[in-house]
Amino acid sequence: MSFDHLLADRTRNMSASAIREILKVVSQPGMVSLAGGIPAPQSFPLPIIRDLAAQIFEKYGARALQYDVTEGFQPLREQLVEYVRQQNIHTNTEEVVVTSGSQSMLDALGKVLITKGDKIAVEAPTYVGAITAFNPYEPQYLALPTDDDGVIPSALEEMLKQHKLKFVYIIPTFQNPTGRTLSLERRKEIARIIQQYNVLVIEDDPYSALRFKGDPVPPIKALAPEHVIYLGTLSKVFAPGLRVGFGIAPEPIRKWVVLAKQGIDLHTSSFSQALAAEFLAGGYLKDHLPKIIELYRPRMEAMLTSLDDFFPQEFTWTRPEGGMFFWAAGPKGMDLDPVYWKAIENKVAFVPGKYFFTDRSQGIETMRLNFTMSNEETIRMAVERLAGVLKSCL
Amino acid sequence: MSFDHLLADRTRNMSASAIREILKVVSQPGMVSLAGGIPAPQSFPLPIIRDLAAQIFEKYGARALQYDVTEGFQPLREQLVEYVRQQNIHTNTEEVVVTSGSQSMLDALGKVLITKGDKIAVEAPTYVGAITAFNPYEPQYLALPTDDDGVIPSALEEMLKQHKLKFVYIIPTFQNPTGRTLSLERRKEIARIIQQYNVLVIEDDPYSALRFKGDPVPPIKALAPEHVIYLGTLSKVFAPGLRVGFGIAPEPIRKWVVLAKQGIDLHTSSFSQALAAEFLAGGYLKDHLPKIIELYRPRMEAMLTSLDDFFPQEFTWTRPEGGMFFWAAGPKGMDLDPVYWKAIENKVAFVPGKYFFTDRSQGIETMRLNFTMSNEETIRMAVERLAGVLKSCL
Repeated sequence: MSFDHLLADRTRNMSASAIREILKVVSQPGMVSLAGGIPAPQSFPLPIIRDLAAQIFEKYGARALQYDVTEGFQPLREQLVEYVRQQNIHTNTEEVVVTSGSQSMLDALGKVLITKGDKIAVEAPTYVGAITAFNPYEPQYLALPTDDDGVIPSALEEMLKQHKLKFVYIIPTFQNPTGRTLSLERRKEIARIIQQYNVLVIEDDPYSALRFKGDPVPPIKALAPEHVIYLGTLSKVFAPGLRVGFGIAPEPIRKWVVLAKQGIDLHTSSFSQALAAEFLAGGYLKDHLPKIIELYRPRMEAMLTSLDDFFPQEFTWTRPEGGMFFWAAGPKGMDLDPVYWKAIENKVAFVPGKYFFTDRSQGIETMRLNFTMSNEETIRMAVERLAGVLKSCL
Repeated sequence: MSFDHLLADRTRNMSASAIREILKVVSQPGMVSLAGGIPAPQSFPLPIIRDLAAQIFEKYGARALQYDVTEGFQPLREQLVEYVRQQNIHTNTEEVVVTSGSQSMLDALGKVLITKGDKIAVEAPTYVGAITAFNPYEPQYLALPTDDDGVIPSALEEMLKQHKLKFVYIIPTFQNPTGRTLSLERRKEIARIIQQYNVLVIEDDPYSALRFKGDPVPPIKALAPEHVIYLGTLSKVFAPGLRVGFGIAPEPIRKWVVLAKQGIDLHTSSFSQALAAEFLAGGYLKDHLPKIIELYRPRMEAMLTSLDDFFPQEFTWTRPEGGMFFWAAGPKGMDLDPVYWKAIENKVAFVPGKYFFTDRSQGIETMRLNFTMSNEETIRMAVERLAGVLKSCL
């Protein structure tokens, strides 16, 4: 039987991830990879989770294994209200929806908000997983210009004068892929703009807890609460495989997200949610987060030092204060695609930056470098090796 | 800020579940409910899951907490190949996708297959959750006539002569809501028809393991493997809250489902999948399933006996051999909606059957009765009480 004629029109917008395709070679023996994008397994609180799992059977019994309401496990929703209060977000359990990773919230928001052809604004560059979530709903992307301080507010305002947007999608803190953080001044300016133009922002904030230096900045949600849907996750501070993320959305949006989620997966794993609830309720994060930070901070510093030491002077790079990534750029017009393959030959991997742009003609001279998955020594060796390849290609 | 203008066109198709709305009264004190649709918590292998959870940390360590591939946890995919072989389904790990409940597979299939206006055939009545999953993709439903042996094959053939269908969605065994099972003879006939007309069937099979009497019948997937996407779940034989379902789909469909799932939730909880893998690999289901059957069989028999003893002679009802539901029908044209509210006054609940029809003018005289959530005594008392209400309304 042939199946091609059975595919929906929208399915044409789902393409095999180009990044995954080119990264298939990264598992070759001897490869040193800065291409990763996931937390180090050493960052997981394995003994705590093991103990909590045992306790959950005592405390919740069958409830942790039974169907639950779509909105989320009530004890976790209550904990999440407290969790985001540390970020100056004042909400209540009603506004919190627990989702299967924040990926699942992106999908639900795409489903509820995007009609084919709707304009949505995303940073250039932006998180690929958001594009993967939104694509099946067939939006038209407008690229928000960014610099080292993140989105440029005047560019957003200009865009809003010319276009009617469904929403703006931003990752303001330790952005994936750039590691950049939107400055407080710009956050205030963006809060003003979205209130003035009455526009909805989806603020994706997976990394802000991973701050290794500098002072915290409040989320945009804290500055313009009514105009922002805030997305958080426990994937970077607890365990990503449990798939526990959450959204905080104004009631008129939240209710539709819940209806959409009924059809998508009924609810997120009760057991995962019970684990997350106990982890937060027990105050374990307060002790565990410093351990994650102590694991990653030297890795971030090793990468910065190595870039300073080895990278060619024709390149520039970000100086993140947290998160998981650096972003580097060669001379304008230098195509890093062939450089990628040369680096692979030399057993070092990175992600070419162009894949993070909705307009693929942008960013050909850029690259994303991850520092969470390797120790300091390996990072230094990898950056030196990569620098050698770059110099040979200049 | 107002949000209504931001909703996608498709969102108009997502309505608050009418069933959930009317069932809100069921939690009133003193209510005896036959309206449920979920497994009894006593059916969960709680001590086994507790032990397996501890073992998983030993066996898989951080892997059970880390991001995994979208297709599913490889040890679980291998176990599922063996699991469905008992049903005469011969497949390989490549064709298996693990999803967040089979609900999530329904959503992914809707996303990948349905373009607005596409015709899909569903049983009349059918599973409400499937309609909730498909609705956002805006199909047009065609209702397949059914009788006590399930879908009527000649009606399907007639439909295929007149309409080009995207797919046919069927729950052939112990159907929700009717408890009916498609006879072997009809399965063979349907296998012939879908091969002859080259049409795709989505076979949803959550209940077949819950057979309390009679002989197993093979799934349609075993009779027409190339034309059927088979959906299974561990929700009814293990634990629904873990959200582990699966699909077995021909490669050209499976690859799109995986791409869609990348955007939907990246992957299903690694920990849930590891639990399910160990449950199957350890052979625990072989010992545990008979316990579930021993729990439910007397409940099913109690309901049948009570219906025979108490229900008015103007009513008919199904005689299921497994699953979770009975289906009863009053005289043609009798509206069970006011009867529902009278039953609630008398502290007994059921689900009016009309909610299971895509054409709401159908089934006003029908009702779904669940037997998994109450013990035999309660079931007998509830059926007697309900019978009294029905007699007073005839």
